[in-house]
Amino acid sequence: MNAEIIAVGSELLTPFRQDTNSLYLTEKLNELGVEVVFKTIVGDSRSHLTQVASAALTRAEIVIFMGGLGPTEDDLTREAVADTLGLELRRDWDVLARLEQRFASRGMKMSANNAKQADVISGATVLPNANGTAPGQWISGKYDGKERIILLLPGPPHELKALFLDQCVERLRAKLPPQSIATRVIKVAMMPESQCDARIAPIYKRYSNIQTTILAGAGEIQIHLKTQAASMDDAQAIVDKLAEQIEEELGEFVFSDNGDSLEQIVGYFLQMRNATLAVAESCTGGLLAERITSVSGSSRYFLGGAVVYSNELKTEFAGVPPELIQKHGAVSREVAAALAEGILKRCKATYGVGITGVAGPAGGTAEKPVGLVFHALANESGTDVVERNFFGDRKRIRWFASQQALDMVRRRLT
Amino acid sequence: MNAEIIAVGSELLTPFRQDTNSLYLTEKLNELGVEVVFKTIVGDSRSHLTQVASAALTRAEIVIFMGGLGPTEDDLTREAVADTLGLELRRDWDVLARLEQRFASRGMKMSANNAKQADVISGATVLPNANGTAPGQWISGKYDGKERIILLLPGPPHELKALFLDQCVERLRAKLPPQSIATRVIKVAMMPESQCDARIAPIYKRYSNIQTTILAGAGEIQIHLKTQAASMDDAQAIVDKLAEQIEEELGEFVFSDNGDSLEQIVGYFLQMRNATLAVAESCTGGLLAERITSVSGSSRYFLGGAVVYSNELKTEFAGVPPELIQKHGAVSREVAAALAEGILKRCKATYGVGITGVAGPAGGTAEKPVGLVFHALANESGTDVVERNFFGDRKRIRWFASQQALDMVRRRLT
Repeated sequence: MNAEIIAVGSELLTPFRQDTNSLYLTEKLNELGVEVVFKTIVGDSRSHLTQVASAALTRAEIVIFMGGLGPTEDDLTREAVADTLGLELRRDWDVLARLEQRFASRGMKMSANNAKQADVISGATVLPNANGTAPGQWISGKYDGKERIILLLPGPPHELKALFLDQCVERLRAKLPPQSIATRVIKVAMMPESQCDARIAPIYKRYSNIQTTILAGAGEIQIHLKTQAASMDDAQAIVDKLAEQIEEELGEFVFSDNGDSLEQIVGYFLQMRNATLAVAESCTGGLLAERITSVSGSSRYFLGGAVVYSNELKTEFAGVPPELIQKHGAVSREVAAALAEGILKRCKATYGVGITGVAGPAGGTAEKPVGLVFHALANESGTDVVERNFFGDRKRIRWFASQQALDMVRRRLT
Repeated sequence: MNAEIIAVGSELLTPFRQDTNSLYLTEKLNELGVEVVFKTIVGDSRSHLTQVASAALTRAEIVIFMGGLGPTEDDLTREAVADTLGLELRRDWDVLARLEQRFASRGMKMSANNAKQADVISGATVLPNANGTAPGQWISGKYDGKERIILLLPGPPHELKALFLDQCVERLRAKLPPQSIATRVIKVAMMPESQCDARIAPIYKRYSNIQTTILAGAGEIQIHLKTQAASMDDAQAIVDKLAEQIEEELGEFVFSDNGDSLEQIVGYFLQMRNATLAVAESCTGGLLAERITSVSGSSRYFLGGAVVYSNELKTEFAGVPPELIQKHGAVSREVAAALAEGILKRCKATYGVGITGVAGPAGGTAEKPVGLVFHALANESGTDVVERNFFGDRKRIRWFASQQALDMVRRRLT
């Protein structure tokens, strides 16, 4: 079966807000074997909503509305869908009683406009909303002679997600042919997309029964595998077999095949080895530390570090000799190594990282252009330095530099 | 006039990718006085594209397609729009020559499939693409008896943006009634949305000719004002008058009215006063330093700082006495103050910031729950500490803490 997702709300047609619920719903629908073929965004206008509803019911088998179920005059999804289907809206006294109870339990009196949230399209199943006032609605029937499933879901993400999981997934599954869909995500660090694809295309192209999607971001490639089979075990065995071959081909470039981020993987390995990490960052300005500490529990392996933007602080916090900076420049292989070794010693860590580079857009020279970054990793047995020339804007260059540094730690630990 | 924006590409119907071009286009269209009334996302299917094209041409006056103009079999926007309009596609020999030239100038031979990028819908104006191979197309004519403008634009954001600005804005303006639209954005820090709205609603509601949109994010509220008038000067005067009244009402909560970020504002004030800043971060783990250094040129006022995740490093880098930590705990008013004062001294900065708190989700206690954060700001004349209880997940708590710290620096400087 295929689906259209409709996001309702005038704010989603401004330059400032974007529908994100549909990404979640798409993931869950794909897991059920439902393909999303259209997405539409429409404002709080009854006539526009009606136009969108009839177009969707003509072209998709499952039509999901998100939003426009609130208590205000602008909330018109119920009315528009009823119009389109030629059905009546009827006040549901059970729903109304629950609404009144919800307000009463918080010591509040329900205002009159909330009552419209108890209006239910004739023949619809009410889907209780555990996290908000607007219940969802499920309508199953014919439109223009064709079988259709229509879902009305609330817009706030935490209401929508819970309601969809609790009330919709099993109802949809019962309407769908039994499917067993298995997926796998392989993550790869610091590899050019073209190089990655050139190496793995000959492998995944042999499996026409597996859908392979390659998503390239800044310093990270995700390879998504998906297949379906008669049983879940069969489906999983099929994707696992391809995953194994891809991982073998890409070798040490692969850092995760279970969804973990690079920050998490670095954390696992440090913990596993009872090791600690400290960092001295110049051009990344705290981004590396921020990424490492975004993982809950990182205090078990991350001691801390220094953001050494000025030359004086490179000396003060990481013991880099001023002469070294003077001789080679702050952006140099030597200073990167000294930062890593200095912070290692200062923090009494197992591993020390040093980063220095030109993040731009200003500050580049012919000899040391914007994008030049030196990354150093030190432990008691020695120091490695990697020199890279990243392109792009300040944000991208800083991100790549932090990614490269994390990847160096990962490779050293594995 | 109103518009529908259509994003084309099967990847935009997966859980992993999202159309973002439409936000940019919406901003530019709004500036011309065009309202976006529908957005649609459709995959690389000729029949789906045709369905979407005819629905859009029925319900919107300007229809803009983004993407699907590339050289592969999956790029079908040209074909589908031609089908829908009942027009022919014709190979444009000038466009083809330019394409071949583009490849030749890079020492490459054009592959045969690229030639389809020279296919132009009969009667369309070719819009040269300075940044890529696929030109845009502009079609102005009747559909089902109604005047329509149809735009075909390339999908890659840098191609789309340049092409729209260079080739479409003036062409659209010539088709539209003359409009003078003025806007203003007021940014407010660390104020609850309900409190902000309660104070300014009585003011902005007096101006029915100004569209006021309030967008609340983590620790920041943006108040967008927009109006149109006979002349640009008139329009600007109208929004400026309201902006002035809102700013007077909100006073020191307002940090910017020209689009600048809080990080930028802090930077301006530090530079203006010839002052420098250093930070010692515990729970924010480098986020504050990262935000400050995300501004190009921040090395002029930001010296650096320390990420003092472990207690030992609080002592080592910011000179916090171990007894103080033992007596009050690492998360305390006293340790926050000692971090700010210590880092100030160590870095010889004009201002020092210290942050310590419980970012969660683990590590909270009854006395010191998740979300409790102490923020300290020191200079030679004294130290302020602000205690806050933030709610939300780790990411949100860390963001709020960095926002609070930046806002303290801003307030001290103004």
